[in-house]
Amino acid sequence: MTASTTKLVLALAGGVGGAKLALGLSRILPPDQLVIVVNTGDDEQFHGLHVSPDLDTMTYTLSGLYNPETGWGIDGDSFETLQMLNRLGADTWFNLGSRDFAMHIRRTELLARGSSLSRVTSQLTANLGIKHRIVPMSDQPVRTVLDTDDGTLSMQEYFVKRRAEPVVRSIEYVGASDAEPSPGFAAALNSASAIIICPSNPYLSVAPILALPGVREAIEAHPGPRIAISPIVGGAAVRGPAGKIMQELGADVSVVGVAREYRDLCDVLVLDSQDEVLTEAVRAEGVDAAVMPTIMQTDEDKVQLAEQVLALAEDLENRRT
Amino acid sequence: MTASTTKLVLALAGGVGGAKLALGLSRILPPDQLVIVVNTGDDEQFHGLHVSPDLDTMTYTLSGLYNPETGWGIDGDSFETLQMLNRLGADTWFNLGSRDFAMHIRRTELLARGSSLSRVTSQLTANLGIKHRIVPMSDQPVRTVLDTDDGTLSMQEYFVKRRAEPVVRSIEYVGASDAEPSPGFAAALNSASAIIICPSNPYLSVAPILALPGVREAIEAHPGPRIAISPIVGGAAVRGPAGKIMQELGADVSVVGVAREYRDLCDVLVLDSQDEVLTEAVRAEGVDAAVMPTIMQTDEDKVQLAEQVLALAEDLENRRT
Repeated sequence: MTASTTKLVLALAGGVGGAKLALGLSRILPPDQLVIVVNTGDDEQFHGLHVSPDLDTMTYTLSGLYNPETGWGIDGDSFETLQMLNRLGADTWFNLGSRDFAMHIRRTELLARGSSLSRVTSQLTANLGIKHRIVPMSDQPVRTVLDTDDGTLSMQEYFVKRRAEPVVRSIEYVGASDAEPSPGFAAALNSASAIIICPSNPYLSVAPILALPGVREAIEAHPGPRIAISPIVGGAAVRGPAGKIMQELGADVSVVGVAREYRDLCDVLVLDSQDEVLTEAVRAEGVDAAVMPTIMQTDEDKVQLAEQVLALAEDLENRRT
Repeated sequence: MTASTTKLVLALAGGVGGAKLALGLSRILPPDQLVIVVNTGDDEQFHGLHVSPDLDTMTYTLSGLYNPETGWGIDGDSFETLQMLNRLGADTWFNLGSRDFAMHIRRTELLARGSSLSRVTSQLTANLGIKHRIVPMSDQPVRTVLDTDDGTLSMQEYFVKRRAEPVVRSIEYVGASDAEPSPGFAAALNSASAIIICPSNPYLSVAPILALPGVREAIEAHPGPRIAISPIVGGAAVRGPAGKIMQELGADVSVVGVAREYRDLCDVLVLDSQDEVLTEAVRAEGVDAAVMPTIMQTDEDKVQLAEQVLALAEDLENRRT
């Protein structure tokens, strides 16, 4: 394959589900053929440090450091630093491991020195041996804020501190209209062949990315194959509060509801095998459907789903040309 | 004893030696009768965090967290955070434990919110159950900088990174003339009965405190008893590079050299028993000498030395009145 025919895949991802598929993609595609754009709407300052939960989940997953039990954090990490911070009067509802703290300390230091979040992320992922590009959606702050029956909450306050219990009325992506896609994201949007929307929360992971100026329009107008993988399987979220939020916002908690969210953004919605009966209902929403096993437990599952999604993209590409 | 007769002891201290005597003093004196003023000339930013080595040594010692093997840091602390920072490309020559990091993170956060170092120190020591007042010498930055045969080095670069190997030509306390004694220090200077100069490095621990505007003059003019404990025993420093630096700066590495440094600042210099033969030589420098065991290994040693120093202060006080 020559450079001119090298195809670039752009994957949009949030936390654990997105990181699983991105790991699969990274096992198949060489570093120059994959750009993983990660939601930063969950970023928050804890103890004066810049924490980027989704970037970290992605980084720990691709570097092999991740904790397979929790999906977040570093495997085998201790909580000594956090316990001591608690003794020192800090509010420690957000779990941060001692090795995990190093990431936040280093990121904060490099940002304070004037580096962009993109450059910091590039440096930190390289330090951990990751060859693929993990790119924050923006170098400017965008904060996902939930209006709930229990007041206005940041994403982490809602998800971690309040265990996603409050009823969500609406969601805002504060700062999105003043932010712009990071340089790596903007370049990938321009040059990507295929776009993959990973099985992440449509409202809390993907929507903040889409809220950046020009992004939704660019994906809607994208000429290459666009594939989304449903994070809803069997009428419930595989993980996290996506199902609960869809319901609270009046959406149909099913792959049909996901199809309505993504209909202008993807050519094919990938449904899990157990949702095969909804194939026609999805197509009725104006999106083609593909059915395959999407639950990723082992690394083999992740690679297998990535392979099938890439094969689907290849098919779509060939059908067009 | 009524409030009006309550006597205040002001102790000036640096790192490990000072913390040992301060522990002894704190076991004897109630919290309202002791103010421990600590050198901050060693403070330095590591990984974007404000580290105050002497304040921490004092805090860990008085809270019982300290590591008796090293003298610094927290007993049983791990180095996971630091090791991870190293993987992330940080320069990690300065040892910082995972629980120790919590102290620096919390201090940095509270300072960034606008608290003074005095208020932050008061809060953090209270959180660790310390009832006695540990007070930074100043709320403004003062940095001990060494001019050596291997360039200009900060105190920690000289002491930790270069293991005190370079030859010291001169020492500067950068910022001292623009700084002022912290409010707690200034108040104690005004109201203290006795002043105790702990067995700390004269050049690296005590001199930065004396370099603050008005401090040397206030101690020289202090009407109450002033006692210094020699950090040099048997012609060498009990710990650290004090002896080496004295020699390099052309001073006599003995209690006589210490007497010359402190002659206007103390009424009595406490010599260790093994320096008894130098009693007259010290007195010839214009300072009275008292002889007692000063090597503090156990907590009992610390309390015993503190008791004897306080008895000496009482004696001096009685002789004047």
